[in-house]
Amino acid sequence: MPKISLKGQQMPESPIRKLVPYAEIAKKKGHKVYHLNIGQPDIKTPEVALNAVKNADITVLEYSHSAGFESYRTKLAAYYQKQGLPINTADIIITTGGSEALLFAMGSTMDADDEIIIPEPFYANYNGFSTASGVKVVPVISTIDTGFALPPIADFEKLITPKTKAILICNPGNPTGYLYSQEEIMQLAELVKKHDLFLIADEVYREFAYDGFVHHSVMNVPGLEEHAIMIDSVSKRFSMCGARIGCIVSKNKEVMATAMKFAQARLSPPTYAQIASEAALDTPQSYFDDVITEYKDRRDTLIAELNKIEGVKVATPKGAFYCIAKLPVKNADDFAQWLLESYDFNGETVMVAPAAGFYSTKGVGLDEVRIAYVLKKEDLIKSVQILKEALKAYNN
Amino acid sequence: MPKISLKGQQMPESPIRKLVPYAEIAKKKGHKVYHLNIGQPDIKTPEVALNAVKNADITVLEYSHSAGFESYRTKLAAYYQKQGLPINTADIIITTGGSEALLFAMGSTMDADDEIIIPEPFYANYNGFSTASGVKVVPVISTIDTGFALPPIADFEKLITPKTKAILICNPGNPTGYLYSQEEIMQLAELVKKHDLFLIADEVYREFAYDGFVHHSVMNVPGLEEHAIMIDSVSKRFSMCGARIGCIVSKNKEVMATAMKFAQARLSPPTYAQIASEAALDTPQSYFDDVITEYKDRRDTLIAELNKIEGVKVATPKGAFYCIAKLPVKNADDFAQWLLESYDFNGETVMVAPAAGFYSTKGVGLDEVRIAYVLKKEDLIKSVQILKEALKAYNN
Ligand SMILES: Cc1ncc(COP(=O)(O)O)c(C=O)c1O
Ligand SMILES: Cc1ncc(COP(=O)(O)O)c(C=O)c1O
Repeated sequence: MPKISLKGQQMPESPIRKLVPYAEIAKKKGHKVYHLNIGQPDIKTPEVALNAVKNADITVLEYSHSAGFESYRTKLAAYYQKQGLPINTADIIITTGGSEALLFAMGSTMDADDEIIIPEPFYANYNGFSTASGVKVVPVISTIDTGFALPPIADFEKLITPKTKAILICNPGNPTGYLYSQEEIMQLAELVKKHDLFLIADEVYREFAYDGFVHHSVMNVPGLEEHAIMIDSVSKRFSMCGARIGCIVSKNKEVMATAMKFAQARLSPPTYAQIASEAALDTPQSYFDDVITEYKDRRDTLIAELNKIEGVKVATPKGAFYCIAKLPVKNADDFAQWLLESYDFNGETVMVAPAAGFYSTKGVGLDEVRIAYVLKKEDLIKSVQILKEALKAYNN
Repeated sequence: MPKISLKGQQMPESPIRKLVPYAEIAKKKGHKVYHLNIGQPDIKTPEVALNAVKNADITVLEYSHSAGFESYRTKLAAYYQKQGLPINTADIIITTGGSEALLFAMGSTMDADDEIIIPEPFYANYNGFSTASGVKVVPVISTIDTGFALPPIADFEKLITPKTKAILICNPGNPTGYLYSQEEIMQLAELVKKHDLFLIADEVYREFAYDGFVHHSVMNVPGLEEHAIMIDSVSKRFSMCGARIGCIVSKNKEVMATAMKFAQARLSPPTYAQIASEAALDTPQSYFDDVITEYKDRRDTLIAELNKIEGVKVATPKGAFYCIAKLPVKNADDFAQWLLESYDFNGETVMVAPAAGFYSTKGVGLDEVRIAYVLKKEDLIKSVQILKEALKAYNN
């Protein structure tokens, strides 16, 4: 039997994964579980996208071009241009989800053993993509006290070594909901130019910005063209996570040429999903207005309710649909498990994502959880009510 | 501007890619180009698969389970069992094409700088997946003189080092069309057991076996359970390359647990495509019978016609839908380019894949091309006629 001892085996599990068996236990007991732990929106997929697939006239389901349908890339470029981003068809490669775009971005800027600096807490799957690429994640801590604002540039500079090739940000952030200001983006831009690094921005939540705050893309910084790589996805924008369509965007021709080699190796992104994604670009603005109104409303409800609980601290998210809450518990991991395994409030409980899994530094964020507001308002109110009662019970 | 010098940049381009601009030239001249270079079948996708997507009742296009639909995995296990393979639901992870399965297989058995031995000529994209995984490909030469049979085991053993973790075979082979005998599979099984290696078998063409030859899967070798990893795909079986669905199959729980971590990082395989793939399992046997009859007929035609050309040597493929032909030219790369750029026979020409790109060893296979028989019989006959005339003209 082959003995294997691999980096891949050491890859941390998703912060939620180890709770899954306990959620099963709760369900077996007949308890209703409110899922505050997931990033799967309950919003309807635009009909124009679903209908395009229904009406597609296919006899041979062929590979598409490795960069994706030319027609889709062109329409997508126009979509970005309407948002003020100077992006052309040639700057876009369609990928199998933002996930694959992240993999291509790492593979096209780094070799095994190179380093990438990422503000933590960060989207836990960045661990998986860096492990797959053999790349080392170097975290720089951001804290709830600043609302997860960009850490001081000096903190980044301390971590830069000859092996550092890129900085990766998530904007707006999963799990923080933080939206970087223009000034923060400019600071990062100066930093990467000074040290000749890439700035990879995961902007899959770019449309989810609230309170009139404007999203600042790395694709919109003059002079950053050769450094900036944008990651995007249709998953959240159109609530079509199951499509598996995203893209990598850059003006750096060398990066795109290498990304294209990876794209060719895997042949093509999924055809049906591209049909849906291309059609989705015709979604009327009213759809987005409704969605943003809905999420803003959910966020306001969630934050207001959380703030009513003594000992809970939460940074009001300006974007995406997550927030990090600091709880009056020692170990949120144990608490999250207890919620499922041992607790119920009138037959109901909640599942939250312990935040420690979003930090790369050991021992940080132990008392924090990530809450996703992808549930209906009434359910959010109920969930926080349960959380409040649970905290009382747990701390006695 | 970040200076990058990466393994990813050095990745060899697809053997066909560099010919694409010349095909454009031929088309601009108004020449008809017969594509003998591609692996995209012209066979119709089963209607049962296409209809399942048309009739799917979706309101939110959600992520699926990271391992794929449970229902699909179970039905797929039953499909394998019917073919005599002892494969259960738990042994299968659904992937985004056989391509992703190959990536997972490498990432789950090897770290950066480990080595994988592959008989060449091999499917050129193995280079891309190994580059992405930081893994080193060590080729072992098989030759047209033996019809691309398994190289002597001694040739493998000479290449095994402490860094060798796996042997990868393609059965039946792209680009060779060679189908390994039971004895060859047993020899490989002994070898990997002796040296504690994995045996990864890319069996995406498993159903395409002709002349009554039987396909021997690595999943069917007693005692090989912990070593065997099978790669499969719906792309060719159901002529649905654009779906992007495949799977990695193994009884080795450690390998599958690691593969699952990679699967979780990228969230899920495409949902529409899984609906199509699950439904495709209801394709009537008559569909396959017709397809195999059609391919066999095409193969017989192609081989007979090629053998009529003086100086051409071809190994009769027993499976898949490719063959390697040795041509009376010095450099098949130049010849393939010339065919597109400078030649036509009554306004028509052919595009072939120079075989050098399927070899990892430099300078081997320079006078060989890969021909795919995915065209109608009449077109194949015409194509070989053109090739014959072209060779005469080229060699004068
Ligand atoms: C921050 C972030 N990036 C990337 C992704 C990947 O999404 P997908 O592969 O569905 O596009 C997600 C999904 O949740 C995410 O939250
Ligand atoms: C030998 C071999 N393996 C794997 C693949 C990958 O196919 P897919 O990713 O479409 O399943 C191909 C496609 O041509 C192939 O020829």
